[in-house]
This record gives sequence, C-alpha cells and structure tokens, in this order.
Amino acid sequence: MTDIIRADGRNSAQMRPVTIERGWSAQAEGSALISFGNTRVLCTASFTPGVPRWLAGTGTGWVTAEYSMLPRSTNERMQREAVKGRIGGRTHEISRLIGRSLRAIIDMKALGENTIVIDCDVLQADGGTRTTAITGAYVALADALEWARAQGHIAKKAQPLRDSVAAVSVGIVDGVPLSDLAYVEDSRAETDMNVVVTGSGDFVEVQGTAEGAPFKRAELDALLDLALASAADLTVLQQAVLAEGQ
Amino acid sequence: MTDIIRADGRNSAQMRPVTIERGWSAQAEGSALISFGNTRVLCTASFTPGVPRWLAGTGTGWVTAEYSMLPRSTNERMQREAVKGRIGGRTHEISRLIGRSLRAIIDMKALGENTIVIDCDVLQADGGTRTTAITGAYVALADALEWARAQGHIAKKAQPLRDSVAAVSVGIVDGVPLSDLAYVEDSRAETDMNVVVTGSGDFVEVQGTAEGAPFKRAELDALLDLALASAADLTVLQQAVLAEGQ
Amino acid sequence: MTDIIRADGRNSAQMRPVTIERGWSAQAEGSALISFGNTRVLCTASFTPGVPRWLAGTGTGWVTAEYSMLPRSTNERMQREAVKGRIGGRTHEISRLIGRSLRAIIDMKALGENTIVIDCDVLQADGGTRTTAITGAYVALADALEWARAQGHIAKKAQPLRDSVAAVSVGIVDGVPLSDLAYVEDSRAETDMNVVVTGSGDFVEVQGTAEGAPFKRAELDALLDLALASAADLTVLQQAVLAEGQ
Amino acid sequence: MTDIIRADGRNSAQMRPVTIERGWSAQAEGSALISFGNTRVLCTASFTPGVPRWLAGTGTGWVTAEYSMLPRSTNERMQREAVKGRIGGRTHEISRLIGRSLRAIIDMKALGENTIVIDCDVLQADGGTRTTAITGAYVALADALEWARAQGHIAKKAQPLRDSVAAVSVGIVDGVPLSDLAYVEDSRAETDMNVVVTGSGDFVEVQGTAEGAPFKRAELDALLDLALASAADLTVLQQAVLAEGQ
Amino acid sequence: MTDIIRADGRNSAQMRPVTIERGWSAQAEGSALISFGNTRVLCTASFTPGVPRWLAGTGTGWVTAEYSMLPRSTNERMQREAVKGRIGGRTHEISRLIGRSLRAIIDMKALGENTIVIDCDVLQADGGTRTTAITGAYVALADALEWARAQGHIAKKAQPLRDSVAAVSVGIVDGVPLSDLAYVEDSRAETDMNVVVTGSGDFVEVQGTAEGAPFKRAELDALLDLALASAADLTVLQQAVLAEGQ
Amino acid sequence: MTDIIRADGRNSAQMRPVTIERGWSAQAEGSALISFGNTRVLCTASFTPGVPRWLAGTGTGWVTAEYSMLPRSTNERMQREAVKGRIGGRTHEISRLIGRSLRAIIDMKALGENTIVIDCDVLQADGGTRTTAITGAYVALADALEWARAQGHIAKKAQPLRDSVAAVSVGIVDGVPLSDLAYVEDSRAETDMNVVVTGSGDFVEVQGTAEGAPFKRAELDALLDLALASAADLTVLQQAVLAEGQ
Repeated sequence: MTDIIRADGRNSAQMRPVTIERGWSAQAEGSALISFGNTRVLCTASFTPGVPRWLAGTGTGWVTAEYSMLPRSTNERMQREAVKGRIGGRTHEISRLIGRSLRAIIDMKALGENTIVIDCDVLQADGGTRTTAITGAYVALADALEWARAQGHIAKKAQPLRDSVAAVSVGIVDGVPLSDLAYVEDSRAETDMNVVVTGSGDFVEVQGTAEGAPFKRAELDALLDLALASAADLTVLQQAVLAEGQ
Repeated sequence: MTDIIRADGRNSAQMRPVTIERGWSAQAEGSALISFGNTRVLCTASFTPGVPRWLAGTGTGWVTAEYSMLPRSTNERMQREAVKGRIGGRTHEISRLIGRSLRAIIDMKALGENTIVIDCDVLQADGGTRTTAITGAYVALADALEWARAQGHIAKKAQPLRDSVAAVSVGIVDGVPLSDLAYVEDSRAETDMNVVVTGSGDFVEVQGTAEGAPFKRAELDALLDLALASAADLTVLQQAVLAEGQ
Repeated sequence: MTDIIRADGRNSAQMRPVTIERGWSAQAEGSALISFGNTRVLCTASFTPGVPRWLAGTGTGWVTAEYSMLPRSTNERMQREAVKGRIGGRTHEISRLIGRSLRAIIDMKALGENTIVIDCDVLQADGGTRTTAITGAYVALADALEWARAQGHIAKKAQPLRDSVAAVSVGIVDGVPLSDLAYVEDSRAETDMNVVVTGSGDFVEVQGTAEGAPFKRAELDALLDLALASAADLTVLQQAVLAEGQ
Repeated sequence: MTDIIRADGRNSAQMRPVTIERGWSAQAEGSALISFGNTRVLCTASFTPGVPRWLAGTGTGWVTAEYSMLPRSTNERMQREAVKGRIGGRTHEISRLIGRSLRAIIDMKALGENTIVIDCDVLQADGGTRTTAITGAYVALADALEWARAQGHIAKKAQPLRDSVAAVSVGIVDGVPLSDLAYVEDSRAETDMNVVVTGSGDFVEVQGTAEGAPFKRAELDALLDLALASAADLTVLQQAVLAEGQ
Repeated sequence: MTDIIRADGRNSAQMRPVTIERGWSAQAEGSALISFGNTRVLCTASFTPGVPRWLAGTGTGWVTAEYSMLPRSTNERMQREAVKGRIGGRTHEISRLIGRSLRAIIDMKALGENTIVIDCDVLQADGGTRTTAITGAYVALADALEWARAQGHIAKKAQPLRDSVAAVSVGIVDGVPLSDLAYVEDSRAETDMNVVVTGSGDFVEVQGTAEGAPFKRAELDALLDLALASAADLTVLQQAVLAEGQ
Repeated sequence: MTDIIRADGRNSAQMRPVTIERGWSAQAEGSALISFGNTRVLCTASFTPGVPRWLAGTGTGWVTAEYSMLPRSTNERMQREAVKGRIGGRTHEISRLIGRSLRAIIDMKALGENTIVIDCDVLQADGGTRTTAITGAYVALADALEWARAQGHIAKKAQPLRDSVAAVSVGIVDGVPLSDLAYVEDSRAETDMNVVVTGSGDFVEVQGTAEGAPFKRAELDALLDLALASAADLTVLQQAVLAEGQ
C-alpha cells in the first residue's frame, strides 16, 4: 500500500525536521531552542532553592510552567496578553498541560525543596507549539537539574528524573491519520490529538478532540499508534542531545 | 470474578444516582438542574437571535458555554473569580470543553444566525462537575432549540441537533478502573479521564491525565470501555427526560 | 375603603409567598434556599476559626457577605462579573448592605475570634433580591452559629445573636404604597425603599430612593408602616423555620 | 432646655461653615470648590453634546457622576484606586448616589440629547464628603446648564432644572441627634443618615444605617427633622451663590 | 536684537507667573498648591516611619511619587485611570520622573528608615504639569522633613536635603527656544525638553524629544541655557517660600 | 593619554560586538534579531493596511511599538506582565520611546493610511535593551516598508523613510564617560543617558538621568560626544545589513 505525500513532502507517519539547540540562553540554569519545522520555541528552566509556602517543610519540590506566544509568532499579529491585562483560556490550558507533563516524570522527593519554573516562549508558530514546548522543556529541565546537582542544591546521588517525556500532535486529515501536524494541516483536521509520552512509552496525557465529526474507537487507536512511534523518535533525539557535552 | 465495593456502595462500573430537573429556571429558554450524586449543576441555555460580528452574514450560528462554581459549592469556601478579577485556568479550560462538546453535535447551518450561551453553575461539587455539566447542558440546549423553533427563530424542519452528547469521568483508583468518580475517589486516582461521547457512541473528547504514574495502553482501553458504557446509560436518561412534556 | 388588587392578585400590604429551605447545601455550615415569589436566592454561611489580621488579638469576630447574580437569573442574560474582570457598583453596594445588616444583630465579642462569610447567590431574580438575601442569610447565619457551638468554636453559653433580622422592599407605584415589589412593580415605582428591620422591630437600614419624583414625608411614613408589618411576618417565618429540627 | 456644645463649638442643629467658590476651574463648563468645614470637594460639570448609545434618538439627556478621594485627603494616606486597579465598593456607591440625586431634579427631555458628567474630587476629607459633594455638584450643574443654553446646546426657554438639590449627614452621637457630622463625630455615631433633599423640601434619598445599635422610629423622625432644616439652609446658600454674577 | 512676544505677552525666556501656597492641606505632613500660570498642582508629602521590606534593616529611607490628573483638569474631560482599571504609560513615566528627581537631592542615610510618598494631583492643566509638580513637590518634601525632625523621627542634626530641586519645560516653537511652554505652545513645539536642575545648577534629568524634526546640537545647547536660567529663578522662589513661617 | 580598559576588554568609547540577523522571522513583514554583546532582541515589524479610527481619512499612517522582556531574559527570573495583569511603568516608558524614535524618521504622508507595529522582545538582557531595540527596529521597519512597496501598499516612488535611526546608552562610571554600558556598568553608573540619533547625526531623544550625583554641563557634553560617535558606527552597520540581499 502506498502512503500519501503531504504538502511539505512528508509521508503520513513522518515528523517535520526537529532540532534542539541546548543551552541557548546564557542566563537560565537550563535552556533549549527547539524547532519542529517552522515552529520554534525557546524553553528556559529557572531553578530556585525553596518552594511555595504550601510545600514548605514537606521535603518535596515543585515544577511549574508558563507558555506564551510572541505577538508576531503567528501569521497575523496577535495582541499581547499583558496589554489585554488577562491571560486567555488557551494559554492557561497549555501552561497547565506542560506543567503536568513535566511533573509526571519528576520524583519530587528527590528534587527536594527546590522550585523549577519552565518558560516556553513561542518565537514562531506553525502548528504543534504545545508539543514542541513539552519536548524542549524536558531538555531544559534536565540541564537545570544537572546544574543544581553541580551546585549542591540536590544530592549527588538523587535521581529526580524518573523518565524522560516528549509530545506530539497527531490528527486525522481527509480521513488519514497524520503525525506532527503543521498549521495548515491542523486547521483542516477532523480530529486533533495531543499525546504526551514517557521515554518508556507510557502515556502522561491523551487529549483528543473532534474538531469536525466525532471519531470512532478505531480512529483513536490509529492515532495512538502514530503518536507512540513519533514520541519514540523524539526520545532518541532528546537522549542524543543530552549526551553531548554542552 | 467479584467486583469491588466502593465507599458509597457502588460497584466499579456504576454511576452515582443521576437526576435531571428539566425547566428548573423560569427565565431561561432551556434549563436543567442536574445531579450526579451530590454534584449539582444548574445549566441554563440563553437563546439570542443574531451572531457575533465575525459570523454575521455567514448563515451559521454559534454555541458557547461558561462554567463557574459558587464559592461555597466546595468543602472549603473558594474566593470568587469576580473578586479576584480574573478567571482561573481551570475555569477557562472547562468552559472551553463544554462549548466544544456541544458544538460537536450542532449543525450550525441548521441553527442559522442565532446564538446560544450555556451557563453551567456548580451549586454543589462532589467530583465530576464538568461531566455533569455537559450532560445537563445538552438537555438545556435541546429545550432552547425547541423554544426557538416554536418562536419561529429556526425553521420548522431544521434539524440543528445532529446527535445528543453526554460525558463521564473515569479513572484508575488503587489499580481498579472506576466510573463516575466522586471527589474522594478523584483525589486519589492514579489516572483520571474525562470522556465526552455522542448518543451514537462516538468520541467528542478524550482527556486522560496521569495524576500519579503514567498509564499503559491497556489501562487506557479499559477506561474507554467503562466510559462508553456509562455514557450510553446517560443517553437513555436524557432521552427519557426530553420525551416528557415539560 | 377597598384595597387595590395587584397583577399577581396580592393586595397592597401583602408579600409574595415566602419559602425557606433550610440546610439546602451539604457543604456549608449553614444554608438556606429562600424564595420571595419567583426570586430565589441560595444563602450559605461559611464558618472559619480565626479573623482577618486587623482583628487578631481583639477577641472579636467578623461577619461579611458577598452577593452575586447568576448570569441567567434575569430575563436577559447578563455578562458575568468574573468575565468583565471587575465587580460592578450595584453588586458591591448590595454585598455591603447585607454584611452591615447581619453585623447589626451580632455580638462580635460573643462570636469570639471567628469569621463567617455569607454568600448570597441569586439563582432567579424577580425583584427584591437584596431583601430576600438578607432574610435568608439570617437563617444560614443562625445555623452556622449553632454548628460552631456544637463544634466547640464558640462557648456553650455565648449568645452571638442579639436579635434576628429580615428585610423587605416597599415602594410607591401609581401613588399607592406597596409591600414586597415584584420586578414589574419595581421598575415602575416612583419611590423604592429597602428596609432592614430587627426581630424587635427596630431599623437597621432605611434606604429610600426617589426613582421618579421626590417623595414627601407622609409617603415616607406610609412606606415605613408597610415595611414594619411585612418584616414582622418574616420574623415569624424565620423563627418557625429555625424551630424545626434541621 | 439647653442644647449641647459640640467639640468645635456648634450646637446640635448647626452645620459647619459652608463656603462655595463658584467657577473655580478655568476648564469645566461649570464648577464649584465647596467646603463644609474642613471637608473640601472640587466639583466640575463637563457638558458634551450627544448621549450614550442606549439613549440615542430618544430625545432625552443623561447626567452621571464620579466621586473620588485624593490619596492624602485623609489623615492617613490611602492607596489610589487607579493603582489598585479597581474602584472600591464605597466609591461606586457614592458615585451612584450623587448621580441619582442630580438626575432627580433634572428634566431629561428639557436637557435634550446632551450629557453632563459631574466629577467630585475630595481634596480634603473631614466627614460628610458625599453630602458636601452633592451640594456643590448642584452649583456646578446649574452653571453648566447656563453655559449650554448660552452656547445654544439647549433651547432658550427649556427648563432642565426642575428644582435644586442639597444634602446633609445627620446622626445620633451619645444619644443626641446632630446635624452635619464631622469625622470625629461620624466615627462615633450610633446611627448615621445621609439625606438628600430638594429645594422644595421633598426627599430624594434617605439612607439611614445603624452603626451600633438599631434605631427606633422616633429617632428616625428626629433625624429627618434635623436634615430638612439644614438642607433648607443649604438651599438658601446655593441660591445666593448662583444669584451672583460669576 | 529684539525678542519675540508670546501669545500671553511673555518674552522667550520668561516663565509664567509662579505661585506657591505652602501648607495648603490640613492633613499632610507637607503640602503646596503650586501654579505655573493656569497649571495648578496640589502636592502633598506623606511621611511614615518605616520602609518597604526590601530596605528594612539597611538604615536608609525611601522617597517615591505618584502623579495623577483630575478628569476635568484638561480642556476635554479624560476618563479616570481608576475607571479604566489601569494606569497609563504617561502617568507611570511622570510618576517615576518625579520620584527620581526628588531622590537625587535626598541623603537616604540621613533620612533613616522612613518613607515619604509625594502625591502630585493636577487640578488644572495648561502645559508643564510635570515640571510644576516637581517644583512644588520639593516644597512639600522640605516641610515634611521639618515636621519629621520636630516629631523626632529624624535626628536634630541630620541633613536629609543635600540640595533643592526645580524643573522647567523648554522647547523650540517656530524655530525659537522658549521657556515654560503653555499648552498651546507645547502642542506646536518642534522639540520639547524637560529639565530638572538642582539649586546648585547641576542636572538631575534632561529629557529632550524631537516632536517634529530631529534637533541639532546647537539647539540642544540653547535650550539647556534657557532651562538653567529659569530653574535658577524657581530656586529663588522656593527658598523665599520656605523662609517664611508657615 | 591612555584610555581605561573595561571589564570586557573594551576601551571607553568602544561598543560591544553588534550583530544583526535580518529576516529572522518567517512570519513578519520585516524582522531582525539584533545583539549588542549578550543583549539580544527580536524585532518584528507587522504591516497592516489601514489606520486606527482617529487617523482614518487623513491620508497619514501610523507607527507604534511594544517592548517586552522574556521572563528569563534576566539573571533572575521576572514575573510575566501578563501574569501580573498590568504592564509596568518601565515597559510603557520604553515602548513609547521606541515608537517616538521610529516616528521621528517616518514621513507619515508617504506611508499613507497604513499601520506598522514594531514588537521588540528581549530574549536576553545585559544592559542597553532599549537602545539595542531601537537600532534593530529600524532594520525591521525598513524591510517592512520594502515589503509594502513590493505588495503595492505604498507607492513605488514614495519615500516614507526620511532618515535612519539608531540608539546607544552612554554613562559615567567611576568618573569616566563610557559608551554602550553593559549591565554591570549600568548598575554602577553615576549618570546614565540614552541617546537616539538619526543617520544624519541629529538628536531624536536625549534622556539623561543622574543615578547618583547630579551631573555637570561638561559631563553632559562629553556623553553626547560619545553617543554621536557610537551612533555613527551603528548607522554604517545598519546600511551594510540593508544593502545585502535578504
């Protein structure tokens, strides 16, 4: 059976070119400039000793995330949320998703009473910004943890990372399940699913939405197959990037 | 194999008692006071001829939703979002979910240039408020559409409802997949999944989150089975309620 | 002299049917769902040990109130104040009125360093929402105090309630003083007065406003007579409701 | 019977010295800098042809008011509401009171489709700021109307002013009814009442509040007597000020 | 060479009449009502023992300023920033300028751990409000410091004032450098410069802006000459005002 | 006379390495990623046909700017202004400065009824972010204008750019005037001056502030000399970058 050819030349299961520039920021404890094709996200991890008041004395740490888009990351300029004076629902939702995804692979006891804030700022958007952000955030997070270990903020032998995490968007376009949707595909998808997967291949989040018609169980299964395969590729890339000296 | 007995006497696949008081509000074009056990949500549907500016002239309608919790719907009083001056991320996220779920079963062309706003106000919360809200919102929506037909706002033969929609939360607690989690179960769940299903049994939304450990493909499958079964029960109840004269 | 017959069949001095469902909420320390005709308000009382910082160490407690209307409590849907991001003047004004009315009958020393927050959420509005709220709030407050006594938060013999409190709106419509204005009457009233009265028959608040023409001293006197009579009826009802086992 | 002597030498029924500097502002269409003792309020009236959208085409005008206190008008500096980002309940409540009081004496048809905004900015506060503001606002309003007549915005023979309006605070301190409470009296008052009265001696607003113990009908009557007498004095002063060439 | 005559009769280097009413407020620790022609600003200085948390224990004090315009200080009424719910960029910028200007002449060690907040409220605006405010703020500040010395909050021999400070706006209108621009001049200026100068004749701030065409070095020099001369006049006036018994 | 050697090896008049990546963004009509040493700013220019309502029908265009810092552009993570819900004074002030600087070199008639919004997002901050932003914004602006000409939005022969513009911060550190202050120098500067200069060498803005002691006329002159020299270097670089094919 022959596969389709997508607008940018990919086949159905293929991701766009993925690049990760580790340590892009001179200021942050960990950082990565990550691209899924034309989608480019700057992820920084800020490490601070101590935790919010509601965790003080519990011996456990905290990891949270904030997502934002530059006003001209998109094809038409958007108004800044700071100018509007309020953060929109979509921004909140994605920030919460990124935070949950990272917390799922962290051993908060091993982190100890330390806080890591991950900022994911979309410099350029072409679909899949949240999955790009999660995948890059993991690299920034891993480096911030190594920095903290080197500084003595966490114990030499502590293993705060229980696993790695990556994410990919998959969807059904014209009846065909596709991996890593670009913006033009995403806007035409009948079903859109963001899947967050650990390096071990288990699910952290599955968020499927019928944009057009409701979807059947078999379609759901096909999308999950695609997502697991692409996430496995991203895991390999993350490991390779982190294996290099910085 | 014997099933477990839950704290409130249910077995694993059983929902809490569900009641729907249709037409609770004397003001709204459609309304329902719905309970899933102690979770009680007042759903109203407000019909207005006309659409937001970005839809004017397109011949298509609009359906949107807003979710909110009364400050003392919960065990500890929460601060009102109006007092805080901003709507939290969770509220935005749930409002968006309810709106998408309803739009998935509406034929916007058949609705014509009319707008329906669904308000889901949680009067009492004991887990599953978003799924309770979606299930009740469908009843309020259906009644508002009949009202609009009677008033001549939509054509006699138009069929804006393509299907019905209901929702249920399922999750894994102590390794056992359970349907319709009460608050005490939800707070202990390893995995929590909200599933929105049409009357025909297709998916509108699948939102699974690993609260503790990541979940395996087999666990995901078991949860989806549970959710489809419970949603089918809700569909039957919705049909029965709507079949009565109001 | 024959009295007038109002649109809903009442005579001039007659209130609408008043019902109080005590203990409506399973979560709050005290609660009441109260109706003045079609006006329905859910009042909850939330008890917390401790006081705001400015009262700490004074040995006196605090009682405050928040009033809000559900968006579709009214005939036309209103925008939520949480969505607008600010609380309107009318909401503030009514919240302050309810709080003052309750504080007037509380012995703050007998309450001790405890805080009670009363939430009055209007589920359906047909005139007189603030007076309905005050009347119901008293019942919720009384129950919260009994709960606190049972829990040992206030002393067995302490008498934090110095009196009871109820409220009624009166007004002049077509030259005739009427009690308990429904919305259609209120919107046509020349003068509108909200009167808050203790169980002993003294005034806590008198707020009279000329909506059309200024009003004369004799008219003011007639309205106060009506208000005192209706408030006395409400006092009897409150006592009856509180005398029942909950 | 001998009357009491108050801290500043007044007897019970006596107001503080009242001065009105008409036309204080070179910018506004009408203005007055008014003092009730140390309470000083700058009132300006801004006239604009045209009305808000909801009145367009009705042939009627609109009058509204905004009240504010300079941060150091009080003994302890208050935070600016612009800095807090929200207007407090008290400010809203007083702005609404001033607006209603002025609208009560305006014939909106005679005003025609014109808008007048009254700003009352408290430069120095020593009790009675809202009643001082209403009394000064009337003078600013009257001058703005004359300006509008001279400019041809309202007809030569139109009589938009149906009456004048003035206001005074009265209260019971140590059991004695007093007129025009200064701050030290106001903060000790058992009952505090703001009364807005037309030049003809009818009531526009009566707002009585039990600050300590509830008040009796006889006390209410005594306070109203005091208020009417003081308001009559203010009416005479307003007329004298407006009779002078500006 | 003959100088030009300006619309209000001044020559190019002449300021408008400047008056300073020291101690205008009965509430503030220092105050001045200052006029540059029709521009009138009420400046109050509020002294509080103690400093913000970030200065506690350092032995140094803090001086800050807030600037605001009454809504009808201008020819057309402006919306209040409290109503808008946010402070505009211009207001922030001017508040910051006033604060920096005053801090430049204060010895924070000699002030000790005390805070002074300067409020500059523009009652009437006709150009040069920020320079008028700075000049008046100095007088209010000086009086607040004397009050604090008299109260024992600062040491008898401490010299928190290292110098005085005054400010003037200068600009090029129709090619001619002018001092102290009135509003009609300011709105036509090609270049506008605000200059803050100490009593010793050194610069605290120089803010020059090309409103129309960029300006040359020689023009800059001419404007600075004008500004220094006018500032010297203001210094003399400030000293005279402060030399009088209050 | 020998010059000093600065911490990073520069002499007093030397700027840090300046790089401009023109066309960094695939979305914007013009863009530049500019670095002054470790300070990195992404400047995008968004072109839209049409103007704000207050300019419609005047035949003139509009150019405005917004400045923002990523939360981890600095050494310590800052809270996002969108999270705070309000834009700080410093941000407003810099946005306004950038906008004015660009408008000073634009012929708004030649631009026609078109709007350009410049976004300057600081990705990494090490002093001089506002001057870096202005210098990069000019390149983005020039490209957006060429894009608009190519698209036919502005006339073939129109010359909306009257000149170029660049900016540099200069200051006095330990008594020595230095060009292009890095963060460690800026935080120690006695006087800090931002100077915006056209390609022709005239001033658009001169903003000098005494951070420590007031500064003398001679110091001001020395700083202006430095700024003009550095700005001339920036002008050469801008021209070179724009001369390349994109």
